[in-house]
Amino acid sequence: MLAHAPTPGTSLWVHAHPQEGSFNDQLFRAGTAALARRGEVLRSDLYRQGFDPVLRTQDAGDRATEAGNLATRIAQAHAAGQIPEPVREEQRKLAAADLLVLQFPLWWYGTPAILKGWLDRVLTEGFAYGDMDPELAVPRRYGDGGLAGRRALVVVTAGEDPASIGPRGISGDIESLLFPLTHGTLWYVGIEVLDIHLVTDADALGAEGVAHEVDRLRERLAGIDAERPVPFRSLREGDYRGTRALREDLLPGRVDLGIHRQIAR
Amino acid sequence: MLAHAPTPGTSLWVHAHPQEGSFNDQLFRAGTAALARRGEVLRSDLYRQGFDPVLRTQDAGDRATEAGNLATRIAQAHAAGQIPEPVREEQRKLAAADLLVLQFPLWWYGTPAILKGWLDRVLTEGFAYGDMDPELAVPRRYGDGGLAGRRALVVVTAGEDPASIGPRGISGDIESLLFPLTHGTLWYVGIEVLDIHLVTDADALGAEGVAHEVDRLRERLAGIDAERPVPFRSLREGDYRGTRALREDLLPGRVDLGIHRQIAR
Repeated sequence: MLAHAPTPGTSLWVHAHPQEGSFNDQLFRAGTAALARRGEVLRSDLYRQGFDPVLRTQDAGDRATEAGNLATRIAQAHAAGQIPEPVREEQRKLAAADLLVLQFPLWWYGTPAILKGWLDRVLTEGFAYGDMDPELAVPRRYGDGGLAGRRALVVVTAGEDPASIGPRGISGDIESLLFPLTHGTLWYVGIEVLDIHLVTDADALGAEGVAHEVDRLRERLAGIDAERPVPFRSLREGDYRGTRALREDLLPGRVDLGIHRQIAR
Repeated sequence: MLAHAPTPGTSLWVHAHPQEGSFNDQLFRAGTAALARRGEVLRSDLYRQGFDPVLRTQDAGDRATEAGNLATRIAQAHAAGQIPEPVREEQRKLAAADLLVLQFPLWWYGTPAILKGWLDRVLTEGFAYGDMDPELAVPRRYGDGGLAGRRALVVVTAGEDPASIGPRGISGDIESLLFPLTHGTLWYVGIEVLDIHLVTDADALGAEGVAHEVDRLRERLAGIDAERPVPFRSLREGDYRGTRALREDLLPGRVDLGIHRQIAR
């Protein structure tokens, strides 16, 4: 079993905006300061630290030039202690934290490349997922993985207005747009996800709007440990039994991504 | 109006897999060879050409250190001819092509960072979108943008089995997972999207399976110009009139991303 027991109260804030002094930078500074009351705050300011987001075959260490599945070879490199140091440093920070914050501007309805590559490179098999569930004989994932025992908050700024990016909005609703991150990535490796912290109309806030949003984030963070996470369904619990599609008797007929949340029981 | 008239029959194939000789590499070689019958085939082999996917303030040229919205400043840099040469080269290729193929392995249920950053950097305001619709008084987008007159094919390989990544599958269905790419990016800038070309169980194909998939892609490409694109709704046509959320009388009650496809009329 992969075990990375976090230090209670330690946070990791990953920040992915290129411009110092930007609205995102202000949220980053205010947010990391606010979390200091719960313990140590580790920071990954990806642009300032020059994080290289491109997963290359070299991440597989001695097995870089071998054939075969790359993720598997990287897992072997991880076991052999051959993960590149900048990636290992991110893994150490993530292993230490019980709260992960991912903060970014919404670019093409997803994460900026520098943050996507942080996920690609840091959440390696062998570190974040990959051990077997002895009962189900499948890898432990979706609510049950190498990073279980942690929670994550996604803080995202978008130029869209609330209607465009809300339910039935032309851009798609933010929960569906970020499902690959919240469910497909964080929940996959066992991290519980809190409701997305979305700032809309982010390019048109003005000074007063910025101050309001900074305050709103601070308030959110003050109560963060009392929040309930999004109740995504666990692979273990049988809702997908047999086919890995949601059982037909659960929410029959629905095909939206919201079906992967548990209903009230 | 942004006008980049494509050359009929010219294709651009963007390929984002790190390993030469991989299954993805075989699809890339076979696919680009197959498209040669329709005209010139331009290639962006992102790993081999060392494409830098990180959008930095420097992309704004003389305005790199100014304050204000970064996308707007990059649009100004574009107008002033100050976009970095590797990005301009990609824009030239994209401007020339009437068929765009984006091929990648599904990493964390999205594009590898190197491809995400190609989108972040290449599809700049002023090149791919940003001019105003005189009638609606909003920027032309969603079916009507700087790159209208083109079609795109997304070719994606996934480790998942078909049930996991199909309707109601635990991973989410591939159409919803890639909606930020197909609808939020390609359709946003006016590019019509063909049905996703998905390879499932991609890590377990074996030699025979690989050969079958190479043939299946070739066959698909042989008929590509006769295919009908996904009928995403256009912003211009009134389905989102007023609020930019889908009108209440259209598919009432549904909240899945499939509502953004036109229904049969």
